Amino acid sequence: MERTEISTLGEFGLIKHLTDKFKIINTSTIKGVGDDAAVLDYKDKQVLVTTDLLLEGIHFDLVYTPLKHLGYKAAVVNFSDIYAMNGQPKQITVSIGVSKRFSVEDLTVIYDGIKLACEHYGVDLVGGDTSASLTGLAISITCIGEGEKDKIVYRNGAKNNDLICVSGDLGSAYMGLQLLEREKIVFSANSETQPDFEGKDYILQRQLKPEARKDIVKLLAEKGVVPTAMMDVSDGLSSELMHICSQSNTGCRIYEDKIPINYQAAVMAEELNMSIVTAALNGGEDYELLFTASLEDYDKIITMEGVGIIGHMTKPELGLHLVGREGEEIQIQAQGWNSLK
Amino acid sequence: MERTEISTLGEFGLIKHLTDKFKIINTSTIKGVGDDAAVLDYKDKQVLVTTDLLLEGIHFDLVYTPLKHLGYKAAVVNFSDIYAMNGQPKQITVSIGVSKRFSVEDLTVIYDGIKLACEHYGVDLVGGDTSASLTGLAISITCIGEGEKDKIVYRNGAKNNDLICVSGDLGSAYMGLQLLEREKIVFSANSETQPDFEGKDYILQRQLKPEARKDIVKLLAEKGVVPTAMMDVSDGLSSELMHICSQSNTGCRIYEDKIPINYQAAVMAEELNMSIVTAALNGGEDYELLFTASLEDYDKIITMEGVGIIGHMTKPELGLHLVGREGEEIQIQAQGWNSLK
Repeated sequence: MERTEISTLGEFGLIKHLTDKFKIINTSTIKGVGDDAAVLDYKDKQVLVTTDLLLEGIHFDLVYTPLKHLGYKAAVVNFSDIYAMNGQPKQITVSIGVSKRFSVEDLTVIYDGIKLACEHYGVDLVGGDTSASLTGLAISITCIGEGEKDKIVYRNGAKNNDLICVSGDLGSAYMGLQLLEREKIVFSANSETQPDFEGKDYILQRQLKPEARKDIVKLLAEKGVVPTAMMDVSDGLSSELMHICSQSNTGCRIYEDKIPINYQAAVMAEELNMSIVTAALNGGEDYELLFTASLEDYDKIITMEGVGIIGHMTKPELGLHLVGREGEEIQIQAQGWNSLK
Repeated sequence: MERTEISTLGEFGLIKHLTDKFKIINTSTIKGVGDDAAVLDYKDKQVLVTTDLLLEGIHFDLVYTPLKHLGYKAAVVNFSDIYAMNGQPKQITVSIGVSKRFSVEDLTVIYDGIKLACEHYGVDLVGGDTSASLTGLAISITCIGEGEKDKIVYRNGAKNNDLICVSGDLGSAYMGLQLLEREKIVFSANSETQPDFEGKDYILQRQLKPEARKDIVKLLAEKGVVPTAMMDVSDGLSSELMHICSQSNTGCRIYEDKIPINYQAAVMAEELNMSIVTAALNGGEDYELLFTASLEDYDKIITMEGVGIIGHMTKPELGLHLVGREGEEIQIQAQGWNSLK
């Protein structure tokens, strides 16, 4: 592969090279890249803002993360936060710090991944910068989105008896990560071996190229359901339930046999002698939507493809519980992923 | 000084600890820290968004940068970009990556600096996160601001014959940096010596605790002047003039004897055997406002305190020139600060 040193383009040349191929598609984007600030016009919509800082070695491992997937995922996890507010992502800014070991071609591949995500989700790149880094790769993304005033969903609106719903399946991204880590160790012991990924495509995709649930937000709107509380599952189901319960002042009961598990993920857990339920509760990075809804919406939700009801909210004094397959009650504790440990 | 390990608080405890003291003051802030995204309501105003990623060793040197000043400056340079659009900063998000050598107390000091800047400029902290870093300190700030549709000033509106104006003085921040670098070298050679900062307070302040020109944006509004183009001087006058001329399709002529220079900065340049004019042209980090205005506004601008007229725009074919003290014409070339070199 060709290698062009970043220094040959200079900062402005590099930004132009990386952002030129992005097209503006949203009418709310008045001015994108190229001035002191982007200019947006949201008219009567409310503005949603979320941001993420991803650092090499903490949030991603370049040994097994393709650069294009990294760009895609970095963008998508921000879109996911906007969907979690029942909103639509519209713009992102991307700042990247790179050390000398990265070439212009490397950066182009990262931006190709970001571009793919932007096109897929209808989002405009409107700013950011690229600078040197003395150490690893750092990616900071801010996503701006729109929401309708009376339809934005916070974490604090859940009520006693509300249904607890979750999209897709949980724990798969974590099992994908375990597989990648295992193969990394195998490979470092013997670089002649090829990684064994057969029949593991789904869990790998969940880890390396996750999608945000734009479709679920669309479905909710079509069915006329406004959740009472919602967030995306990035730190694991336990941690997210604790956030919603604590902010809404409720307890909750969820049922182990209702937690949506993918077959490939379950097989992988078995192979690694791990509990797939633990992975679903504490694994993180699923980017599914966890929401609560009024009992009145039961009929609408039960017919929503890709959404499962896993339990219900309770009075706060009842605490947070998982009901096991034998009917046993287990207290839910947050053991979500914590980069600071 | 007390030292609390960051790991003892956990991510959510840490964020709460760091952000609890911030108060929300803007009516456009509907929801700040604590959900998947911040929620803002800009009604009929347009939304301005700018972002910066600051990395240790590239953008700041902790040997001579106090953590509180670092937090203050990191926020202020983003506010400066919003003022450069003739707008008002209203919200920021702050993401920080820290290695184990930083304690909770260190982070608190950085946030104290950010808080001071927010209070001084009337800005709300509405989001962000804190994560581990394997290496140095990384700070990513996004600032959101408001502007009136017909008063936002871009870089591309300058016309032939427009006045070129600049606030404050230029080159001082760069001379402050030179002084700090000199004392760092002296200190590393002999740690018994005390740095010699007598009579250098102004240039040190310009480097370590710069201010954004909120006052100038206010003054422009009071005088009824809407600049034809504007940007803040972060990479040096030459580089910024090239941006405005290229985006506006004009040339320019500026006069060496009109470039505003501070006495302390000039003395420092003399002491270091450097050219203060070169520092003004290529030094950067002044965070002054460079703007162009119609000749019709001459009477209003000439009475504006803290603003100087340094030249005028020309037809594009005349190029970009600095007229020296002897009348000689020197072509302006961008040698702005470039972290990628």
